Amino acid sequence: MLLSRLTEILGGTLQGQDREITGASTLEEASATDISFLANPRYRDKAMATGAGAIIVQELLPRDIPQIRADNPYLWFARALALLYPDKPVQQGVSSMACVHPEARVHESACIHPHVYVGKGACVSEGCIVHPGCFIGDGASVGDHTVMHPNVVVYDGCMVGSHCILHAGVVIGSDGFGFAWDGKRHVKVPQKGIVIIGDHVEIGANCTIDRAALTSTRIGSGVKMDNLVQIGHNVVVGDHTILVAQTGISGSAHIGAGVVLAGQCGVAGHITIGDRVTAAARTGIATDVPAGKVIAGFPSMDHGHWLRVQAVYKTLPELLKRVRELERKVKDLATD
Amino acid sequence: MLLSRLTEILGGTLQGQDREITGASTLEEASATDISFLANPRYRDKAMATGAGAIIVQELLPRDIPQIRADNPYLWFARALALLYPDKPVQQGVSSMACVHPEARVHESACIHPHVYVGKGACVSEGCIVHPGCFIGDGASVGDHTVMHPNVVVYDGCMVGSHCILHAGVVIGSDGFGFAWDGKRHVKVPQKGIVIIGDHVEIGANCTIDRAALTSTRIGSGVKMDNLVQIGHNVVVGDHTILVAQTGISGSAHIGAGVVLAGQCGVAGHITIGDRVTAAARTGIATDVPAGKVIAGFPSMDHGHWLRVQAVYKTLPELLKRVRELERKVKDLATD
Amino acid sequence: MLLSRLTEILGGTLQGQDREITGASTLEEASATDISFLANPRYRDKAMATGAGAIIVQELLPRDIPQIRADNPYLWFARALALLYPDKPVQQGVSSMACVHPEARVHESACIHPHVYVGKGACVSEGCIVHPGCFIGDGASVGDHTVMHPNVVVYDGCMVGSHCILHAGVVIGSDGFGFAWDGKRHVKVPQKGIVIIGDHVEIGANCTIDRAALTSTRIGSGVKMDNLVQIGHNVVVGDHTILVAQTGISGSAHIGAGVVLAGQCGVAGHITIGDRVTAAARTGIATDVPAGKVIAGFPSMDHGHWLRVQAVYKTLPELLKRVRELERKVKDLATD
Repeated sequence: MLLSRLTEILGGTLQGQDREITGASTLEEASATDISFLANPRYRDKAMATGAGAIIVQELLPRDIPQIRADNPYLWFARALALLYPDKPVQQGVSSMACVHPEARVHESACIHPHVYVGKGACVSEGCIVHPGCFIGDGASVGDHTVMHPNVVVYDGCMVGSHCILHAGVVIGSDGFGFAWDGKRHVKVPQKGIVIIGDHVEIGANCTIDRAALTSTRIGSGVKMDNLVQIGHNVVVGDHTILVAQTGISGSAHIGAGVVLAGQCGVAGHITIGDRVTAAARTGIATDVPAGKVIAGFPSMDHGHWLRVQAVYKTLPELLKRVRELERKVKDLATD
Repeated sequence: MLLSRLTEILGGTLQGQDREITGASTLEEASATDISFLANPRYRDKAMATGAGAIIVQELLPRDIPQIRADNPYLWFARALALLYPDKPVQQGVSSMACVHPEARVHESACIHPHVYVGKGACVSEGCIVHPGCFIGDGASVGDHTVMHPNVVVYDGCMVGSHCILHAGVVIGSDGFGFAWDGKRHVKVPQKGIVIIGDHVEIGANCTIDRAALTSTRIGSGVKMDNLVQIGHNVVVGDHTILVAQTGISGSAHIGAGVVLAGQCGVAGHITIGDRVTAAARTGIATDVPAGKVIAGFPSMDHGHWLRVQAVYKTLPELLKRVRELERKVKDLATD
Repeated sequence: MLLSRLTEILGGTLQGQDREITGASTLEEASATDISFLANPRYRDKAMATGAGAIIVQELLPRDIPQIRADNPYLWFARALALLYPDKPVQQGVSSMACVHPEARVHESACIHPHVYVGKGACVSEGCIVHPGCFIGDGASVGDHTVMHPNVVVYDGCMVGSHCILHAGVVIGSDGFGFAWDGKRHVKVPQKGIVIIGDHVEIGANCTIDRAALTSTRIGSGVKMDNLVQIGHNVVVGDHTILVAQTGISGSAHIGAGVVLAGQCGVAGHITIGDRVTAAARTGIATDVPAGKVIAGFPSMDHGHWLRVQAVYKTLPELLKRVRELERKVKDLATD
């Protein structure tokens, strides 16, 4: 694809000679037919040395190679990638090695691979790709152009939106964790709710999202979840929120929109996290958090305060020594 | 179902007019044909305002709607749910799209869905439901009325009890993590034991339970595990213990009966946790814990003490300032 | 198998009478036809009391049973286990209930079980065992004698080495977690790289390894991963490194060779961990770590220092009391 054609589609301005580009790579590994990008000024030296055939930048570099100026080079690069590496063409239709209930509705443009199970009354919409080993339970639905990678499980009655990507091993709609003690044993509280997932949601491999006890566990549109994330029953996650790998959200927590929880965070049950909250990796959130806060630590606190706490924490043995020294001196002073 | 019929079956006393109930819901969402419950006094206002057709309470509310008095409203509600929403009728028999070894024994009342594999000498008992994509290895056994949700894997020789619920993606009997270093590389220690799971055990989605090296990893009866829990080889978990999501138990640890480990806890190998121990979320347990203790923190300590430690921890920068101030004053006093 | 035959194959010296051994077990559970071992001096009493028919030791015990002296009894035991419990014979060939693309190459000695999917251009080498429910994507490859337990997913184009063991539910090659914000929503950065896994790698149940954005996520030879480990995109893991359960490695981190990260560790993105680093359980590593260091804590620090920090941390309430007492005394001194 010509650089000029890329800028025609994606915007930005081309500086230098037009050129055919066939791929994309990192600054270190790009060859003369690849395009690359500079988003983080930290990598400027690499950009100055790159063998790439063209480079996307915010500010022009003093180099004699084709450069594309764009406000957000990383975003531009993301879009260029989608153009340079189009998805495989989809084979439409239902495999003879799949098992689709006669009362399921599968759109003729959908692709149902072998070893897939689609239950009674389930609905698979236009352009969906359902990879081998997936399970779509009775009455469940999957919106148009959603991709289910292999071995994804959507329990009965759960609803997945349009243009979603569910990675391998994702489980949607397993029973919430609810028991009542009868004095001798834990009695299961039947989990009769569902899971509702919005549009343009991506869910990482082996994530688990429990169905609500009575109503619905809801994942907003544009939410992006990394691998091995756990969502308890009745949880609500707002639009465009990001949940990084191995984070866990306990039951009935409400997470706002535009929130970012970095890796291995934990959220207690029944609490509310406001919109646009950002939590550093491993934050343990046990109480409500107002909108817009940046937090860290366990129990969670303001991020800046946490940094100061950690600075002292690391020197605790020295602090103890200073207190001991003070005690000695004060004793001396008192006996003087 | 009539309220009077529910109290006839489940006990409790009906106050107010009898009424037909068709469903159950939360206090906020219940309609006139739903029953709801008040277990936590915190939600009394919601109970006073609910549109439910009936409400289960411990103490009667000053409202003119049918109320059912029960000692444990939540337990009563759990049982009512099971009556109001009976399980789907089971299709008995083996799907023609399943693969069952001729030397496997599958009870005629069991349901083997498509894409299931049952190995040589495996045994699937009365009333079991084995959903699509499950694997039951050679010589493995599954007790009566156990439900295996889609894509559950039970390795060769492992034994699952009766009335268990295994959620999607659960892995039982993967090799324990054991290696011996030969000076150049890690040599695998073959894992020749099994996993034995008791009755009435529920295991959450994508949990992993390793087989023992030589003997058996044992999960007691009535144990309830949330999603993404990890159990190492040779571990023993006592009856009715609760393991909340993303908790990990290292190899050869012994967990007592009636224990509760909240979310994201970690337990070191070869240690013993006594009966009825409760650990707060994210507790890291590295040493033996006597029966009945309530613990928190990492390394774990008495829960009350941990709260006091955390209170000081959060003010460490201020504590440092106070020490500095003391040092200044003591220096002044010394030079006076 | 005769003890003399075992020493002939594995080395070591047999002390006492030769004997037929049919199995292996722990010191407590071994019977007269079992062999057992003493590796940790802590268990010497158990070895003195064991009912085993023979015991592997480093130093002879004052007992009148056959003993095998070996430099590394645990390693010797591991190798004996492999001899005493040979693997099941493999059924070669492709199941008629599997789906193998006509343009896939499957070696005639490989075993493809039912409900397996092998994509276009994929390659399954000599002696591989692919259990039910596995998915091998278009152009993916699996080296000789690799075992894929049930429901393992290898996405398109990813490469798994020889003699690997992939436990049930492992996902290799899911999309890395990369998005660019366009002011309104997260735009997916297409993940066009692959995963390359070396030889003799073992990966625990339900682990997830993301494909690189542009190049490759690389797992070195001899790496051993426990269950539920998460590897982000572009990560490099050096040879013979051990990653214990529930550990997570963020994108673009470089982990050296011979590293050990104990359970529930976390590694931040774009950092480098040197060769032979050992991290205690739950270490949170946010900055580069030089080769050979032993670390712990969050943020990570030298292990010995962390122990001293923790010792003070646990006594913070008392430290606060001492500071208060000093303040009182200093005030008294000042007003004297």
